[in-house]
Amino acid sequence: MKPSEIRELLKYASMPDFISFGGGMPNPLSFPMNELREIVDEVIDVNGKYALQYGNTGGLPDLKTEISKMVLKTEKIKTEEKNIIVTSGSQQGLYGLGKIFLNHSDSLIVESPTYVGAISAFNANAGKMIPIEMDSEGIIVEKVEEKIKSLKANSNLPRFIYVIPNYQNPTGHTLSLERRKHLMELSETYQIPLVEDNPYGELCYSGEKIPSLKSMDKSGENVTYLGTFSKVMCPGLRIGYTIAPEAVVSKLNLLKQALDLSSSTFSQYVAYEYLKKGVIYKQVPKTVELYRKKRNIMLKALEDYFPKNSTWSKPDGGMFIWATLDKKINTSEMLKTSIENGVGYVSGLAFSPDGSHTSSMRLNFTFSEDEEIVRGISKLSNTIKNVSVRATPA
Amino acid sequence: MKPSEIRELLKYASMPDFISFGGGMPNPLSFPMNELREIVDEVIDVNGKYALQYGNTGGLPDLKTEISKMVLKTEKIKTEEKNIIVTSGSQQGLYGLGKIFLNHSDSLIVESPTYVGAISAFNANAGKMIPIEMDSEGIIVEKVEEKIKSLKANSNLPRFIYVIPNYQNPTGHTLSLERRKHLMELSETYQIPLVEDNPYGELCYSGEKIPSLKSMDKSGENVTYLGTFSKVMCPGLRIGYTIAPEAVVSKLNLLKQALDLSSSTFSQYVAYEYLKKGVIYKQVPKTVELYRKKRNIMLKALEDYFPKNSTWSKPDGGMFIWATLDKKINTSEMLKTSIENGVGYVSGLAFSPDGSHTSSMRLNFTFSEDEEIVRGISKLSNTIKNVSVRATPA
Repeated sequence: MKPSEIRELLKYASMPDFISFGGGMPNPLSFPMNELREIVDEVIDVNGKYALQYGNTGGLPDLKTEISKMVLKTEKIKTEEKNIIVTSGSQQGLYGLGKIFLNHSDSLIVESPTYVGAISAFNANAGKMIPIEMDSEGIIVEKVEEKIKSLKANSNLPRFIYVIPNYQNPTGHTLSLERRKHLMELSETYQIPLVEDNPYGELCYSGEKIPSLKSMDKSGENVTYLGTFSKVMCPGLRIGYTIAPEAVVSKLNLLKQALDLSSSTFSQYVAYEYLKKGVIYKQVPKTVELYRKKRNIMLKALEDYFPKNSTWSKPDGGMFIWATLDKKINTSEMLKTSIENGVGYVSGLAFSPDGSHTSSMRLNFTFSEDEEIVRGISKLSNTIKNVSVRATPA
Repeated sequence: MKPSEIRELLKYASMPDFISFGGGMPNPLSFPMNELREIVDEVIDVNGKYALQYGNTGGLPDLKTEISKMVLKTEKIKTEEKNIIVTSGSQQGLYGLGKIFLNHSDSLIVESPTYVGAISAFNANAGKMIPIEMDSEGIIVEKVEEKIKSLKANSNLPRFIYVIPNYQNPTGHTLSLERRKHLMELSETYQIPLVEDNPYGELCYSGEKIPSLKSMDKSGENVTYLGTFSKVMCPGLRIGYTIAPEAVVSKLNLLKQALDLSSSTFSQYVAYEYLKKGVIYKQVPKTVELYRKKRNIMLKALEDYFPKNSTWSKPDGGMFIWATLDKKINTSEMLKTSIENGVGYVSGLAFSPDGSHTSSMRLNFTFSEDEEIVRGISKLSNTIKNVSVRATPA
């Protein structure tokens, strides 16, 4: 798009009645505003001279201790301080892993579609992504195995496998227990590290919670785990963490000195108090209630309004529904019309490592108000139907 | 050093009477604690739903506007929003510039010695640093010109020239006006971008303030300027900024999506209010008073105690004094003894792009208490004298 076209579209998107299913934003109602207000005051009053100062590159030791307690409780992950690095959002962990694992045109295996920020991070480090198909049980691990075998035959194993097992971004799919076990076996057999990105694990609205890959990693040497406070506290403080073998943590530490010296000490103190006081365990259930309702509303609206020849995921958690339209429709081309009609989404192509998914779209259900979700899906359906008529030859 | 040795030294360094001239840390007394307490409350109360949310990758537009007003006032730099990107500390700007300017083994010109974080950032991007000697008027620009001419003869011009013109880290030297003009001419003639890093510009204790390179950059296309809030507010919020030609800002923006999505929205709101309310203009003069006194105390202590065959810089501002000892003394080797004797510093080698400066050390005068400065320099002098005796053959 030309800059002039983008400016034109931004005009629509900033209208007061514009409905955005586009961003991956938590709802501000999920932010523990009063508790954070108390915590920031206490941080300045009690620890101001440390919280406003430079901190350790790898993170505040007390925060790492609290993170290790939290992941034991929530994900049954046994870890300790030396295996944790605090990052500026989990995005920095992704970039860092790309940087330390990949040399020019090394390959890695990814889900297709996958998180757009991971695509950025791996592209920035010139990694060659090998996309593997997904279905409603997540990445098809049989196809991962086939691919690894054919790559091994050429002595060209991928440097790692990147997955978002819970309520994946963008599809909302969850990797089944069976497949998780299979993936762990592949990792152990072929000595290929797994990178497990789990931003949404706590946002579980239905179904059983399936153990994380990291909790199955007996040696602790096979899985690198990425976590974040963005979905269980708020994104604006930019605090994430990576749990990894010591050798990986040590390389990430060295790189982080070059990247930003350290993450915000102040934000780290806030995250520390948020965990230590247990505010997180009161806040997350409220967020889950809020989002479960929104998910249900969007699923119902899709049922009510969306064209019958489209399909969509029914996620058990997270923030997104993935809808796939008639293959004649290109969602990237349709976006301009949809925005002019007052509704935003992200086109499937943005999540594609290889130019596929052109008829799909990611719909975020956490940010909009309940009533907007219904109205937005209804409007979007009309846009799709109008575009379909034009797309179908007379 | 072995990990066991490092642990041993850390034990000394955490003793209550240990005196550190090592870190580059502001004094916590310079943090506007009460004002920040008020600001964070207001940010949460008034703008919580935005300040705790994801923000624009390139930074909060209102903060960029305030930054443009500030640099006009403090550095006579005329710029606008589209030429500014907010970064996670100015360190992220350094990494980003390394990443976008340098391909494998491209060269760049740096001062010798130079900032250790810049060495990390350029090394991480496989840049080949060409060190140019400094004297008390900063980098010797005649030598820069000679080097450029010889590189041009081989069609191998450096990708950029990195300088810290004011109260340089680690030397404390300030680049003279004459040399700044010459450097600008070289940049324009040979079309080599200048990267001007100015973290200490406001910390001026004596002498006249010399115009920044960016303020001399008539086209706006030759100088990329790095600034930070770490020394004029506090480092713990990790907010810096880069002012650059639009094409550079646009590349940094794209990279930042991969690096960390955006800098802390919360920290940006705090920095915005700090500027908008004008707190910065009340706080900095107090910091200058605090640090001027500490500089004077350290200079006097060096005069009183340091060995007569050593030399040191007399900085007009900033945070550091650079001392050079008898060339028989290796300051990296002496560090262990000095720490055991209760005083820390950073060895010259850490700031060297080429293994030089082995008899120099960087002394920070902003962090320690006044009385500690005297006691620390006295102790350090004894260590040097003892090591000298051992270094001199009988």
